[in-house]
Amino acid sequence: MALIVQKFGGTSVGTVERIQQVAEKVKKFRENGDDIVVVVSAMSGETNRLIDLARQVSDDQPVPRELDVMVSTGEQVTIALLAMALIKRGVPAVSYTGNQVRILTDSAHNKARILQIDDQKLRNDLKAGRVVVVAGFQGVDEHGNITTLGRGGSDTTGVALAAALKADECQIYTDVDGVYTTDPRVVPQAQRLEKITFEEMLEMASLGSKVLQIRSVEFAGKYNVPLRVLHSFQEGPGTLITLDEEETMEQPIISGIAFNRDEAKLTIRGVPDIPGVAFKILGPISAANIEVDMIVQNVSHDNTTDFTFTVHRNDYQNAQQVLENTARELGAREVVGDIKIAKVSIVGVGMRSHAGVASRMFEALAKENINIQMISTSEIKVSVVIEEKYLELAVRALHTAFELDAPARQGD
Amino acid sequence: MALIVQKFGGTSVGTVERIQQVAEKVKKFRENGDDIVVVVSAMSGETNRLIDLARQVSDDQPVPRELDVMVSTGEQVTIALLAMALIKRGVPAVSYTGNQVRILTDSAHNKARILQIDDQKLRNDLKAGRVVVVAGFQGVDEHGNITTLGRGGSDTTGVALAAALKADECQIYTDVDGVYTTDPRVVPQAQRLEKITFEEMLEMASLGSKVLQIRSVEFAGKYNVPLRVLHSFQEGPGTLITLDEEETMEQPIISGIAFNRDEAKLTIRGVPDIPGVAFKILGPISAANIEVDMIVQNVSHDNTTDFTFTVHRNDYQNAQQVLENTARELGAREVVGDIKIAKVSIVGVGMRSHAGVASRMFEALAKENINIQMISTSEIKVSVVIEEKYLELAVRALHTAFELDAPARQGD
Repeated sequence: MALIVQKFGGTSVGTVERIQQVAEKVKKFRENGDDIVVVVSAMSGETNRLIDLARQVSDDQPVPRELDVMVSTGEQVTIALLAMALIKRGVPAVSYTGNQVRILTDSAHNKARILQIDDQKLRNDLKAGRVVVVAGFQGVDEHGNITTLGRGGSDTTGVALAAALKADECQIYTDVDGVYTTDPRVVPQAQRLEKITFEEMLEMASLGSKVLQIRSVEFAGKYNVPLRVLHSFQEGPGTLITLDEEETMEQPIISGIAFNRDEAKLTIRGVPDIPGVAFKILGPISAANIEVDMIVQNVSHDNTTDFTFTVHRNDYQNAQQVLENTARELGAREVVGDIKIAKVSIVGVGMRSHAGVASRMFEALAKENINIQMISTSEIKVSVVIEEKYLELAVRALHTAFELDAPARQGD
Repeated sequence: MALIVQKFGGTSVGTVERIQQVAEKVKKFRENGDDIVVVVSAMSGETNRLIDLARQVSDDQPVPRELDVMVSTGEQVTIALLAMALIKRGVPAVSYTGNQVRILTDSAHNKARILQIDDQKLRNDLKAGRVVVVAGFQGVDEHGNITTLGRGGSDTTGVALAAALKADECQIYTDVDGVYTTDPRVVPQAQRLEKITFEEMLEMASLGSKVLQIRSVEFAGKYNVPLRVLHSFQEGPGTLITLDEEETMEQPIISGIAFNRDEAKLTIRGVPDIPGVAFKILGPISAANIEVDMIVQNVSHDNTTDFTFTVHRNDYQNAQQVLENTARELGAREVVGDIKIAKVSIVGVGMRSHAGVASRMFEALAKENINIQMISTSEIKVSVVIEEKYLELAVRALHTAFELDAPARQGD
């Protein structure tokens, strides 16, 4: 008998029929003897409908406090519907809004952060045999104002509740049956991972695998809440995201291949190589609210250096202008850029204990005659920037090189 | 400078455009220097949409607690929209749900009663120059469960807030421009009343004038909250409903003619005239959950009596069966009934100080050859039951007889 927090997103509760299916699923877990807390989002489309209404009365600039009052009704409808559907099936259930639980947040309307969760009511209900249905994405500040956590925040609610209740597992139900070694649309041999660590998941997520909200994974890692990604309406074990507890021989070196095409590259050439030059280059970029991802500075020669970084493609033109100014001020030789790039990364905690992972990556790419433009490494990740047209080829080559194509892996 | 509570129903806030119009109206009052608390219902259609969803997941029997969680979202959306629309117009405003105010109710879900209103927040906001927008129809019980007051309960919220805040007036905005001497569809010469007493309004309302919820009028009378019925989108003074403070010479004897066609009549004939017979007849009717309206017992002759009462037409067949059983037990002669009846009433506090009002009514009906089947009187009302086909004729005759046809009345 376990205590499980289950989170169902907007698509999973998008119609009355789907809410009935979710109720059936929850009922099965109850019948297994598990204690269940369910977190739900608004029915898909509802949040957008409400935001649209709000925009209509307020010239596209809804007052944040009032927007939260409105938008939070979306989940409030779903919790009541799911509780009704459960009770109809003979499963005692009760619904709570964020305020009723009480999920205390700061007062940053539309993007609030959870400060504290009162678990007393929930524990009493669980003890009394009730399934507790909680509205995701919302809370209340110390003055009683309704707040929302920002879009997609229901994952965070699920993880936060699981942490507060010390749940055995937080299950996130989605429209995919787990986390894959890479995008199956690019590599048909991609496989579902049985397990992945929080760190790996963060690297995968930030690199473009949109299965989970980054914030909820960070949160789960911080409080060590085992997270499981599962398909809402298909049976299957999904993917478990946990701490890296068992570094066994069988552990694969690489868990997955992530990639994205959203970046562009900028290089400033022939910069005088003096202390503080990196700040002089990136300071103005950051002042223009442009986020920088990869940064590479080559070894200096004849007292000048080349400095390259990547930004989101949407920020490319702005960044280029800022950089031209900087180049003039610093007396740099030139600014060059390229938007037709892609980033490919291998991710895995296994690389901590295995040497030569990076060179194996470079070898695989070299075999396919793919030129590497930039390299950046972290403890559990190696990223390279390549020409965009080689992206699929590179991902497939790496997937094979790191033996991710093989049929069902065992023992991990 | 007055403190005014304004209530706008579902039709008045049924679209974004109408919410904008309401915001303009409230803004004008603010600019006059009045302090304003606005109570709003759900946008028209929204409550039905939510109830329909609830029925779908629960085989037409939604759990009352969860239904309240759902249905209360309707007003929650409207308060936020109206607050946004006000703020956009430069009018400082803040919205509150029933829970946020805190409108404390009992725990009778779907038909809760208000126990207490915390006016502190509202007073602070008013003092700070804000318009306060409150969700009608909803509250919270002592355990933090969301409750609703039952349909149409927004009027009650308005009156209760006005009472708690000792407001100068509670304005109910509707789709009519006031209370009329009778239904203008029946009597084109019907006139809007400038003023009417709570008692008269109760008699008018319970007899079929559906301008205001009966409960809210009772409530307003109990706490002496001046109520005003006005048209949402037309200018005009509406009708003021107050205590009967000034019994002047000019006061009209009769304020209005009410009528309804929803009743049916049942007579049990030749009942032994012994003590307790009325209870023996009406006890089983009431036990069958049938409400009785008028009751008439004729003077007894040869130790038996005739006993007649009216019930709602929907209950006619049930009542008849119950009465047949009673007749057998009591050894009564027969049970007869008629559904083709109508009730017509004259209502007015003026009759307290004027003799001969009833006979003037009977005279007017006799002149038109309308036979009176039953008579029932109260301090400020005389009701008669007549054959249904004479209804319009009777109402017009009485409207003229009591001089309600005349052009605009003055001095009351």
